[in-house]
Amino acid sequence: MADGLVLSIDGMGGDSAPEIVVEGIEIAARGRSDLRFLIHGDAVRLGALLERYPSAKSVSEIVPAERSIAMDVKPSQALRQGKGSSLWNAVAAVETGQAHAVVSAGNTGAYMAIAMFRLRTMEGVHRPALAARWPAANGGYVAMLDLGANVTADGQQLVEFAIMGEAFQRAVSGKARPSVALLNVGAEDLKGHEEIRAAARLVRDAGVDIDFKGFVEGDDISKGTVDVVVTDGFTGNIAIKTGEGTARLMGQLLREALTSSPLAKLGALIAYPALAKLRKRMDPGSFNGALFLGLNGLVVKSHGSANGPGFAAALEVAAKMARSHYREEIARNLERLSQASASASTQGAAG
Amino acid sequence: MADGLVLSIDGMGGDSAPEIVVEGIEIAARGRSDLRFLIHGDAVRLGALLERYPSAKSVSEIVPAERSIAMDVKPSQALRQGKGSSLWNAVAAVETGQAHAVVSAGNTGAYMAIAMFRLRTMEGVHRPALAARWPAANGGYVAMLDLGANVTADGQQLVEFAIMGEAFQRAVSGKARPSVALLNVGAEDLKGHEEIRAAARLVRDAGVDIDFKGFVEGDDISKGTVDVVVTDGFTGNIAIKTGEGTARLMGQLLREALTSSPLAKLGALIAYPALAKLRKRMDPGSFNGALFLGLNGLVVKSHGSANGPGFAAALEVAAKMARSHYREEIARNLERLSQASASASTQGAAG
Repeated sequence: MADGLVLSIDGMGGDSAPEIVVEGIEIAARGRSDLRFLIHGDAVRLGALLERYPSAKSVSEIVPAERSIAMDVKPSQALRQGKGSSLWNAVAAVETGQAHAVVSAGNTGAYMAIAMFRLRTMEGVHRPALAARWPAANGGYVAMLDLGANVTADGQQLVEFAIMGEAFQRAVSGKARPSVALLNVGAEDLKGHEEIRAAARLVRDAGVDIDFKGFVEGDDISKGTVDVVVTDGFTGNIAIKTGEGTARLMGQLLREALTSSPLAKLGALIAYPALAKLRKRMDPGSFNGALFLGLNGLVVKSHGSANGPGFAAALEVAAKMARSHYREEIARNLERLSQASASASTQGAAG
Repeated sequence: MADGLVLSIDGMGGDSAPEIVVEGIEIAARGRSDLRFLIHGDAVRLGALLERYPSAKSVSEIVPAERSIAMDVKPSQALRQGKGSSLWNAVAAVETGQAHAVVSAGNTGAYMAIAMFRLRTMEGVHRPALAARWPAANGGYVAMLDLGANVTADGQQLVEFAIMGEAFQRAVSGKARPSVALLNVGAEDLKGHEEIRAAARLVRDAGVDIDFKGFVEGDDISKGTVDVVVTDGFTGNIAIKTGEGTARLMGQLLREALTSSPLAKLGALIAYPALAKLRKRMDPGSFNGALFLGLNGLVVKSHGSANGPGFAAALEVAAKMARSHYREEIARNLERLSQASASASTQGAAG
């Protein structure tokens, strides 16, 4: 275990937990020996499941938790009553250094609240942000944040999101120098909210070491114009959900079209392998694994409706992040940012 | 012409003008006798085109304009130098009462600036808004606004958008009582920006006569959860472009998949009629026709890249709006809103 990774898992979080959790671990563990898992939750149910998944069993340890947090519990309630739950204990294992990262498919609001309370924000980060990936026309995935951890963000916070998102994208995609832009209603420097224009000035003035491309628009997300798209949590949440809704609608219309007549069904049958590839590309499971960035610990969120392979994808994100130098990279850029802010306020005071 | 409608057309606006404009008029004019067109632009080119489109020719009058406004001209420049252009003159024909509505596929920013300058905002409307439709899973189209006329909107303005969007949706869809909601990051009353919560309170307190459903999220747009989705121009512009980008990406992936192998091509050929229906449903041309709402005159914007049938769809929107009582409906609800606001500020002053 010396140079292996330990992932702390909320065994009971998600619509189909604990089944998909253990199945996901089985998939992630197969054919590699560098991962170990602490699975928090119902010891009887988890133990029975591990009997069916030998690869998972050989690298997992069950940590009994008496309770679990339901999907509809409010964050404030989770904070008051969540102690001792599988989610709480899974987060705590990162805090105490027993694990390198925590992964849960459970209640997002409760997870964010508990993770913030236990792990606190990194030095130099004002607010954490929720980041995820989205398929792009260039064959890769765009990283996007904030997707709803905060409702507003000022210029400084947007730059912090840009710094964190860039490190996230490098770790997950392997790109040495991901390009970054701010989401706006036009590409010109004069457009958009003052916060966004302030962020664009700040990222340039502070000499933050990222490949900053200025502004992009909503349709640039799917185009993959840049590798990291930065926005406030209100806009980001609405944009990503609008995109998800559109993808779902088109999937539904395609299914309806291809089952609308015997001829259409025959055509679909013949084209099946090609259609299966398309489906895989747009399957939220294939790019599952959102990050709650900016905390003193690695916090990965799986879709609540993920299946086993989807949960395995989230585990893969956690492993890649844990193996990367994202913390050092973020800290270095935050340092430049805070020096620039300090120097700007000194100059402001002098002038 | 006594009980017919007159539409004022910018003959030179759009990527493929004037060809698609005249083709669109031909399609709209066929088999109906209640529409007449004033086509502003290059008399020689328009005259030659009308020779090829007899239905269009019989109901159109060319109004020569020496100039046209290029797609990349800035709004401020269009205001200074646009006088005498086809776009300017097309708008002016509504101002002078020669036409019931104006339709252009030209430069959006220039169009909005000229329309605002010439027509001014309706009494009771603080800021006009850009509204358009989007396909929904229930088979209909959701109306959405503001899509970028303004970058911000306070609670009062959001309620004005709701009132205008509801009248727009009724006129275009024929639904007697379209449902309306505010776009937010969660359905609970406590979530989101203060502006949105203020708008929700105001629409209820003012007794505005619309079927108000509270908040919806980004994925509710494509679901068709409500008939009208209201948001500020920043969020709306980014949401609609993210949705458009996702639809385009999926269309591209589908085309790639169905041409990736001889077998896939064969399947696509067999399923062609069904796939053509899907394509039509998601074709931006089939729901073309955005409205610049809140002015003293009906201003319809076609996609710049629309083809003839797409431009005809925008003409249809203009005709439906012109035939409707949208102005009276909006004025009645705005009156309630302003009474409620006045009474609230009186109470505020008294308390």
